[in-house]
Amino acid sequence: MKQSQMLIPTLREVPADAEIASHKLLLRAGMARQLASGIYTYLPLALRTLHKIQAIVREEMNNAGAQELLMPAMQPAELWHQTGRWDVYGPELVRLRDRHDRSFALGPTHEEVITSLVRDEINSYKKLPINLYQIQTKFRDEVRPRFGLIRCREFIMKDAYSFDTTQEGLDRNFQAMYDAYTNIFTRVGLNFRAVEADAGAIGGKGTYEFMALCDIGEDTIAYSEEGDFAANLEKAEVVYKPAQKPASEAPAMEKLHTPGVKTIEQLTKALQIEAKQIVKSLIYRVDDKLVMALVRGDHELNEVKLKNLFDATFVGLATEADILSVTGAPAGFVGPVGIDKEKVEIIADNYVQDVFDGVVGANETDYHLQHVVAGRDYTVSRYADLRNITEEDVCPRTGGAIKFARGVEVGHVFKLGTKYSTAMGATYLDENGRSQPMIMGCYGIGVSRTIAAVIEQNNDENGIIWPVSIAPFHVHVIPVNVKVEEQRQISERIADELRKAGVEVLFDDRPERAGVKFKDADLIGLPLRITVSDKAAEEGMVEVRVRKTGETALVKLQDIVAEVRAMLARVDRTGAELFGV
Amino acid sequence: MKQSQMLIPTLREVPADAEIASHKLLLRAGMARQLASGIYTYLPLALRTLHKIQAIVREEMNNAGAQELLMPAMQPAELWHQTGRWDVYGPELVRLRDRHDRSFALGPTHEEVITSLVRDEINSYKKLPINLYQIQTKFRDEVRPRFGLIRCREFIMKDAYSFDTTQEGLDRNFQAMYDAYTNIFTRVGLNFRAVEADAGAIGGKGTYEFMALCDIGEDTIAYSEEGDFAANLEKAEVVYKPAQKPASEAPAMEKLHTPGVKTIEQLTKALQIEAKQIVKSLIYRVDDKLVMALVRGDHELNEVKLKNLFDATFVGLATEADILSVTGAPAGFVGPVGIDKEKVEIIADNYVQDVFDGVVGANETDYHLQHVVAGRDYTVSRYADLRNITEEDVCPRTGGAIKFARGVEVGHVFKLGTKYSTAMGATYLDENGRSQPMIMGCYGIGVSRTIAAVIEQNNDENGIIWPVSIAPFHVHVIPVNVKVEEQRQISERIADELRKAGVEVLFDDRPERAGVKFKDADLIGLPLRITVSDKAAEEGMVEVRVRKTGETALVKLQDIVAEVRAMLARVDRTGAELFGV
Repeated sequence: MKQSQMLIPTLREVPADAEIASHKLLLRAGMARQLASGIYTYLPLALRTLHKIQAIVREEMNNAGAQELLMPAMQPAELWHQTGRWDVYGPELVRLRDRHDRSFALGPTHEEVITSLVRDEINSYKKLPINLYQIQTKFRDEVRPRFGLIRCREFIMKDAYSFDTTQEGLDRNFQAMYDAYTNIFTRVGLNFRAVEADAGAIGGKGTYEFMALCDIGEDTIAYSEEGDFAANLEKAEVVYKPAQKPASEAPAMEKLHTPGVKTIEQLTKALQIEAKQIVKSLIYRVDDKLVMALVRGDHELNEVKLKNLFDATFVGLATEADILSVTGAPAGFVGPVGIDKEKVEIIADNYVQDVFDGVVGANETDYHLQHVVAGRDYTVSRYADLRNITEEDVCPRTGGAIKFARGVEVGHVFKLGTKYSTAMGATYLDENGRSQPMIMGCYGIGVSRTIAAVIEQNNDENGIIWPVSIAPFHVHVIPVNVKVEEQRQISERIADELRKAGVEVLFDDRPERAGVKFKDADLIGLPLRITVSDKAAEEGMVEVRVRKTGETALVKLQDIVAEVRAMLARVDRTGAELFGV
Repeated sequence: MKQSQMLIPTLREVPADAEIASHKLLLRAGMARQLASGIYTYLPLALRTLHKIQAIVREEMNNAGAQELLMPAMQPAELWHQTGRWDVYGPELVRLRDRHDRSFALGPTHEEVITSLVRDEINSYKKLPINLYQIQTKFRDEVRPRFGLIRCREFIMKDAYSFDTTQEGLDRNFQAMYDAYTNIFTRVGLNFRAVEADAGAIGGKGTYEFMALCDIGEDTIAYSEEGDFAANLEKAEVVYKPAQKPASEAPAMEKLHTPGVKTIEQLTKALQIEAKQIVKSLIYRVDDKLVMALVRGDHELNEVKLKNLFDATFVGLATEADILSVTGAPAGFVGPVGIDKEKVEIIADNYVQDVFDGVVGANETDYHLQHVVAGRDYTVSRYADLRNITEEDVCPRTGGAIKFARGVEVGHVFKLGTKYSTAMGATYLDENGRSQPMIMGCYGIGVSRTIAAVIEQNNDENGIIWPVSIAPFHVHVIPVNVKVEEQRQISERIADELRKAGVEVLFDDRPERAGVKFKDADLIGLPLRITVSDKAAEEGMVEVRVRKTGETALVKLQDIVAEVRAMLARVDRTGAELFGV
């Protein structure tokens, strides 16, 4: 492809509104343009990469036994009413009315559509299991679209849905998808971890998120370097290791005047104690009841764990009025001592048991209690794992050290169970003629987000560094001066020979200065750059430069095809897969 | 691909709401399912065909020098305000508001988006011409979605937009697209004509529609069997050949009492005359003025020609009140005699000149005038070609006979000119540093509609008859009884060998009766069917059947690959292209 004929509007300036590397580089390398907040046009270079990722996704999904179909973006509201999601999805769901005033959603995901399709077309165990997928444009009206292709309102997703008759069947499909995703993200050149995650609003148990590791990630991952444990912060289990009880019991409880002292930080300063000596008391509304949740002052309560403990559908901090009504005091002075358990249930994180001489709120404005002992001065209905893991905790699998990393979610595999099939009547007749709900799994990949994640992991101050497998082209051929006829001819010949050998070439035939062309080449970031100078005509040699390492080699013209293929095989593991022998 | 693992829900019943062959067959062959009116899911078989059509479109577009990108479906209303189309597009434009109450359209077409992109990224003649295309899901809230994939509310389109500095440049791009479309529709196996068409609301002059010829077409095409003339009814030029003036002039004009006689049909009966002796007078509102248009009683006024004559943006029949105010009579009794030309301009179709002794309305309820002569009894401001062509007219190119056919529009090439570039400020600096508007063309293909058009042209009472190039698979391998181990093994071996030879195979491994499998095979309509019976094991022979002709051949197992490839090459011209030697 001749660069002069391709729309690659590179930019010298760093766009003002782009905060992260991939966003800046997608704009600067002339790959994407924003049309509206969170809505982008993919220019020709980006589309080539997108198509390559899609091809890898298709290949792995088909190999895993999934079948591709294509569902509509416009989905009738009636379907969403059947699962109740029309009401619970909130403003993220893009809604519209047609000319007949009928309501539609623009699909952010397709559980409703696929479940209704399979319900209508499959009714016997003989036709199950089945796993159906599509690669399609999705719509989510994000409250804060940002980071370029990382968090968009219109984006491209691969979504798959499996239907089984048994839990073991679901386990097999789930494992096949887990393996396919591992292959896919390996093949596109990502550094990723599959982490245990919480199912969130979509429901179901047994889910993994595939996280591309990078600093800009919105999620924190806790992982162990020994073994394969990796989990979202919200999901990571905290192992309770009881502390040694001190020899002497704490003195009797005592009330302290602590005017205006409300936060843990203020308390540690005012009383000259450590945060771990304090017990935080938080009042939550959990569905229709009020709960006081206790955690140690140096720990963070985990709302997901709280929600799961009660198997609740709603968890949120209680209102000031609620807090006042059950404790008699405002937030900041709340504590478990003397609470009326008819009004509020008290639960506590396991580690609260270790606070043998603690400080809590006195349920009275400007007062706290010290020398408080659980069991002696107050009781709780149960202890449980209710807090976020920290880097001082241990791996629940190996007992080894826990590390934290940031990650961007690029894939997600879910066990849905029968949530949607039951709601929508997707049943089949089993071997005994009995009607049973199908057991479902769903599996998503953020296809367009993957472009950004790969760039986020593969760039330097000069631009993108594409993995060979999804680079828009493999090689950038650049004559130093295209107006020198011999340089031009040799460049064209090289481009031609490489193309015939299955190497994709971008030929920079623009009448620009060499410096401009080299800068653009670094920005665009194709794996290899071939520079054709007068040396080519005079000595029959061209320079081949590896974008990733900066290494250069002088290569004889007659060796160019073999040498380029060999160098591509050495660039990275994705190049080895494509060009290795 | 094993049929047991593929979602192909064939139907025995003809779906009640499907009127036309392609709609019935897409449903019956298990290729598509309706989600909502005009909104369909493409099941795996249809998606394979869709992908093949897309690959052909891509190849031809790229060969023609166009570059692929991908624009968003969600388009900010501001862009549509810039061209004024937000107001004129009407309810066909799907509109929505985001969570911040900003208005968006779901793209029915992308002139606004592409023009704003090119405006922002290209500013010099050095970067022009350029031709950009995408294959994308489009949305149009059709008033009457129907005919399955023919007229949808959500559909897949290829749209391309060219930008040039000169009219000659546009002509070249236009011709390149015309040629690419000819290749594309030939390669997918369509019987089509490129017909001259009117540009309609989108504007611009010089447009062709690529029409697939089939009876269910909503458009009528006038064409000549000599030469290549083909035009939409609305566009086809009518050549005026004046009739011989009779020797004696008509008698003096005379008023007739014609109570309740309003239509041409009633008049011919009441007065015992032919329709061609009557002059119809129709009052139109043309932008902000009223126009009386005269056509012969046996002719149809063509509103497109009327609109073009006045270079108007709006043409519509006048209201009863308007008619009364300028003629003093209601519709049905209107005529050109004695009209106040301050209130209404009178124009006439060329052929009205030939009515040497005519009948017209008397501008008085229940009265007509007879023996009316143009020029003597009334005058018009101009004569022009204002009517639809008929099969009695002649070809404007060759003078030969005109035939009519029905067609479904599958492609459209437009010369837009500077309409959008001027409205949106898409200018470039020319060689002299002067700012000029870019000259645009736009070029669409109904990709999903093409599936339906191909089926419409290629089917019989048993099902679809796929052209080789876009068949979901090339060959259907069917063991008569899959439970007979030898049949199964031979079938698998054949499927395997064919696959290795680049022939796509659907292997019917379902434990169904042979009759059911044959019926499904005819319905699905793959080009060749290979039946594996006991003869295969006993005599080493299988039967190969050509779906299109019903011919069968007994083929030796060792010859199967060569023979199947040779037969595919003979099925149709698309097979010859893929498998010919």
